[in-house]
Amino acid sequence: MDSMHIVRFRDGERAAYGVLEDGVVRRASGDPFSGLTPGTEVGPLEQVTLLPPVAPSKIVAIGLNYLDHITQDAHGFEQPENPIIFLKPPSSLLAHGGNIVLPQGTERVESEAELAVVIGRRARYVPAERAYDYILGFTCSNDVSARDYQFKDGQWARAKSFDTFTPIGPAIATGLRADDLAIACRLNGEVRQQSTTAQLLFDVPYLVEFISRVMTLEPGDVIMTGTPAGPPRMAPGDVVEIEIEGVGVLRNGVVAEELPG
Amino acid sequence: MDSMHIVRFRDGERAAYGVLEDGVVRRASGDPFSGLTPGTEVGPLEQVTLLPPVAPSKIVAIGLNYLDHITQDAHGFEQPENPIIFLKPPSSLLAHGGNIVLPQGTERVESEAELAVVIGRRARYVPAERAYDYILGFTCSNDVSARDYQFKDGQWARAKSFDTFTPIGPAIATGLRADDLAIACRLNGEVRQQSTTAQLLFDVPYLVEFISRVMTLEPGDVIMTGTPAGPPRMAPGDVVEIEIEGVGVLRNGVVAEELPG
Repeated sequence: MDSMHIVRFRDGERAAYGVLEDGVVRRASGDPFSGLTPGTEVGPLEQVTLLPPVAPSKIVAIGLNYLDHITQDAHGFEQPENPIIFLKPPSSLLAHGGNIVLPQGTERVESEAELAVVIGRRARYVPAERAYDYILGFTCSNDVSARDYQFKDGQWARAKSFDTFTPIGPAIATGLRADDLAIACRLNGEVRQQSTTAQLLFDVPYLVEFISRVMTLEPGDVIMTGTPAGPPRMAPGDVVEIEIEGVGVLRNGVVAEELPG
Repeated sequence: MDSMHIVRFRDGERAAYGVLEDGVVRRASGDPFSGLTPGTEVGPLEQVTLLPPVAPSKIVAIGLNYLDHITQDAHGFEQPENPIIFLKPPSSLLAHGGNIVLPQGTERVESEAELAVVIGRRARYVPAERAYDYILGFTCSNDVSARDYQFKDGQWARAKSFDTFTPIGPAIATGLRADDLAIACRLNGEVRQQSTTAQLLFDVPYLVEFISRVMTLEPGDVIMTGTPAGPPRMAPGDVVEIEIEGVGVLRNGVVAEELPG
């Protein structure tokens, strides 16, 4: 299977698909689910206004899926018997290059590096051994979390659903296996999280089986697979990067919320 | 403000909007967000194949929002200081008349009567006193919940996200205030939940303020406002009805899951 890095970018008033080759974005015809054909050059990645590489109907996220995160960070939690599902709203998506907004009233907002799976075709009751038939590819994601709200509410949804709390991208890498990909989070250039997807307690094929046993996954839906130990706290002015081997580097700034009026 | 009951129904291969008047569906031109004009008659409600009345980009649900539910049903939970948000996926939606599917492996699936708010225009940082400017109307909903998974996971998402676990409809009622509407759940004709929206701990205007302080609400997004005491356990063959005063009756059958292969 060929490897391709798929991006979505702002093309005047519209969203367009492109492919990323050697740091340069080329316009592409078609769509990622039925096939893309690269065309003319648009420009270097950092000069293109990227969008989230996909517009999912839902974002399914998994908690407590790296043992070191559970033992070192998640006080009061034990290793779960099954994947712990939560959901993030599409309104929380943020593209590569956009700013994470730290809400007023929260004291501790952390950055969580996560491998994200992008579904390629409708999936229901998919056995693990056929999971890759339903996966379009992988991208980098950041499960931004306001810890004070997370602990206070018990339910994690509010803490993880603020606008800008789901950075994703820059590209969807196809033709890749997620068995053992290095994953890291850097805050202002300093490595704060470092692991590999070989450490996932529930691996990608099993997650597709488990989730598709509950709900129908649609093309473009995203599964965020959990974060390793050490998610760093962010402050205005920070720059956070999520890097996944063979996938890319997702970079976002951090700003304070300005309330209207 | 005029009151209207808006439905969506299957019209050959397409989804069409209609209005419900005296038990009869009329086709309507336009859309609910910019305005609907009733036209020709389609037929009596029970002879039309209804769809969920709206296709939301997200479903925001509120837990623990009636005191009697907290004290009588939600063991181990206390009255929260703020609304407890969770999310349900659009893939869980079920129309009036469809069957709730009880998954294999769950022992206790309950039906929760809830008033659902349908957002009419993009909402962010909306103060409670202006909330009704952003509300299209109200519909009936059922927050179907697999209690064993809910307790086991701690997070509520899996337990409430199975396909068919969000019945909604039959119609969106416009021109209504939700200050004091009777709400009931009947199982096989027997009343099992009975309350009024005057008992909501966090009322509809405050929920719009609270949620829109976290995330951007899009036209068509749904807020499910929580359930009163006594949600009944369902079994295959049951018929469950959610009735809300001035809104309508949402009726669904119950069947057991049949696994593929």
